[in-house]
Amino acid sequence: MPVLVMKFGGTSVATLDRIRRAAKRVGVEVAKGYDVIVIVSAMSGKTNELVGWVGETSPMYDAREYDAVVSSGENVTAGLMALTLQEMDVPARSWQGWQVPVQTTSAHSAARIEDIPPANIRAKFAEGMKVAVVAGFQGVSPEGRITTLGRGGSDTTAVAFAAAFEAERCDIYTDVDGVYTTDPRVSAKARKLDKIAFEEMLELASLGAKVLQTRSVELAMRYKVKLRVLSSFEEQSDDAGTLVCDEEEIMESNVVAGVAFSRDEAKMTLVSVADRPGIAATIFTALSDAGVNVDMIVQNISEEGRTDMTWSCPVDQVKRAEKAMQDAKDGEIINYHELIADVDVAKVSVVGIGMRSHTGVAAKMFQVLSAEGINIKVITTSEIKISVLIDRKYMELAVQALHDAFDLDKAA
Amino acid sequence: MPVLVMKFGGTSVATLDRIRRAAKRVGVEVAKGYDVIVIVSAMSGKTNELVGWVGETSPMYDAREYDAVVSSGENVTAGLMALTLQEMDVPARSWQGWQVPVQTTSAHSAARIEDIPPANIRAKFAEGMKVAVVAGFQGVSPEGRITTLGRGGSDTTAVAFAAAFEAERCDIYTDVDGVYTTDPRVSAKARKLDKIAFEEMLELASLGAKVLQTRSVELAMRYKVKLRVLSSFEEQSDDAGTLVCDEEEIMESNVVAGVAFSRDEAKMTLVSVADRPGIAATIFTALSDAGVNVDMIVQNISEEGRTDMTWSCPVDQVKRAEKAMQDAKDGEIINYHELIADVDVAKVSVVGIGMRSHTGVAAKMFQVLSAEGINIKVITTSEIKISVLIDRKYMELAVQALHDAFDLDKAA
Repeated sequence: MPVLVMKFGGTSVATLDRIRRAAKRVGVEVAKGYDVIVIVSAMSGKTNELVGWVGETSPMYDAREYDAVVSSGENVTAGLMALTLQEMDVPARSWQGWQVPVQTTSAHSAARIEDIPPANIRAKFAEGMKVAVVAGFQGVSPEGRITTLGRGGSDTTAVAFAAAFEAERCDIYTDVDGVYTTDPRVSAKARKLDKIAFEEMLELASLGAKVLQTRSVELAMRYKVKLRVLSSFEEQSDDAGTLVCDEEEIMESNVVAGVAFSRDEAKMTLVSVADRPGIAATIFTALSDAGVNVDMIVQNISEEGRTDMTWSCPVDQVKRAEKAMQDAKDGEIINYHELIADVDVAKVSVVGIGMRSHTGVAAKMFQVLSAEGINIKVITTSEIKISVLIDRKYMELAVQALHDAFDLDKAA
Repeated sequence: MPVLVMKFGGTSVATLDRIRRAAKRVGVEVAKGYDVIVIVSAMSGKTNELVGWVGETSPMYDAREYDAVVSSGENVTAGLMALTLQEMDVPARSWQGWQVPVQTTSAHSAARIEDIPPANIRAKFAEGMKVAVVAGFQGVSPEGRITTLGRGGSDTTAVAFAAAFEAERCDIYTDVDGVYTTDPRVSAKARKLDKIAFEEMLELASLGAKVLQTRSVELAMRYKVKLRVLSSFEEQSDDAGTLVCDEEEIMESNVVAGVAFSRDEAKMTLVSVADRPGIAATIFTALSDAGVNVDMIVQNISEEGRTDMTWSCPVDQVKRAEKAMQDAKDGEIINYHELIADVDVAKVSVVGIGMRSHTGVAAKMFQVLSAEGINIKVITTSEIKISVLIDRKYMELAVQALHDAFDLDKAA
């Protein structure tokens, strides 16, 4: 029997009624002849409640105990989902991470899946079980302790199972009906994509289109797992949602797949840094140690032994960055003139694998922004993405203008 | 290091504050030099919530899934208790049933503990861990699935650990401060017992003094585990609560240890049953199959091939018993004249191991009741207990009179 993996997030299993609705979807796939592996999250709100209790009990908590507590929400949903399927006469049973076993590293609260031996579940499929309901987000360490994969880890669980069982597809049911060319709240012309390449999805996810956990997309790309994102709140056809897949499977596509943005960015510039070999490493190690997530980095040409270093980071990390740089200056580790922070910027990016074979995308992007009178403060590019920092007040305008200019409201 | 087992029930861990209070009690015992095994229940209300969800999802639920869901409450408390102890600088970790492992039968929702290999926890004690916090009420079947021991099973878990680790004592922290000579709500003269024999406790528990689960007392008796019942809501001295122990350890005791009662009983009489070998087995098998919990049984002397059979059962099972007997009559399995039900009776019992060596206890009991004008409807006796059925309206009077007559308000 071909295997299908279906993952239901917290809002899709938030109540017994929603679990029933999800189970019905599972029943449809079983009727098509699939052996189904269902990955469930905790009922929405439950994990936050547990995390709150742990934090209140022990602010500097032991991550092993955190994992033991926080993983319990998924166990409840898994059992309830199995019972719901049984009520519908679908042979099903629940599996907790350690029962499969989902073998992970010992990095508690941020563990990585190392292996999922499929033998136990395969044996049950062979006996006639149609659905294995697996508690997402959790596993077991080599020491036999419960681990969790970090928030959103159930997506990763789902993809890992799809890889381990060579599933035909991994369907991620969520509260949105797919991946859009941009956020529909910013552009009314945003269009749902039927297909998107893994690489594009990675750039869109890490840029704030929070549909899929980044690690799950990376894993899907590595193991060539076909991922589909679709809504658990709508009746589904076979081609519903958005398929995230290998670029070879996308016959026709726009040069640009989507316009992503990140609203609350800051641009920081260290002015007149005494330049020497390794100075960049010194600066960004200090920022990293201070917990600053640096995104874009630009260095001017060095003149007379001094240079300017510019980076962007989330706006709420500016204070931390300032302290780290001041400490480095006081400790005579970094010599600079001043640190300027612009806290009113946003990042806008165009993303598309088509850029690899089409020239002129960057030039077109800059022309569009210029025509709207929007000044570009920082530019970075990768093979399939061009990002700019601009004044925050122009962000919506920039997204809409780029969406229009690259014809994203029309399918390829 | 000597091992101490401490068990905290649902009301004793109902909030983070109460968990802290319980952890402080654990800290006191650690400071005395004990390696401590703490058994925790779910926060009160949690198990009922989970049971409710399972029932709503699937009225005729798969007990294996029920166990997987319902056991999660104890896992949460175990992790939170371990974190609380760590915050107090007491080296602690949590254990779920399968991690110990608590090996049980496969009788889901009513599993029995078969073995608790102490090696894993002993190894951690040897490494310097002072407290093993174990999720009560749960275990793992030979098939590797999660089992539960039935409601109140955490008491049984605690006693089983005390036996497996040859603990010095098993302290059961609950919301009462010990075992009383009778219910203080019925007799203001009720006195807390310092010690009570296992056999007496068994009779008192099964008669309605719901302090300890019956199975846990049976297990403690078999393995000679010293059990102490005490309140988690009071400051404790070393001799607080009530010690449930082997009768040899009770130097002085009253002939009668306590007066137990059960308010909502019914007396049923099958009049003029055609007597033949095996008729009692036929009647009581039919009642058992119908889910009737028969307690006392009395059979009159048979006359001319016919006899009367009388029994008692909970008053809410009378309808079921009537239907079972009518069905048996209709099916010509049992031939009888009529079935009379008296639904206004209560059971009162005096319990005490002293009866074994003292004569006249029964006579004294009957005299006391007679002097109060209370008619006795049924009598049954065991080695350490005399029970009578009386009209319900006299129950309080009977309990108070017997409590006075046997001097239970005074220590031996």
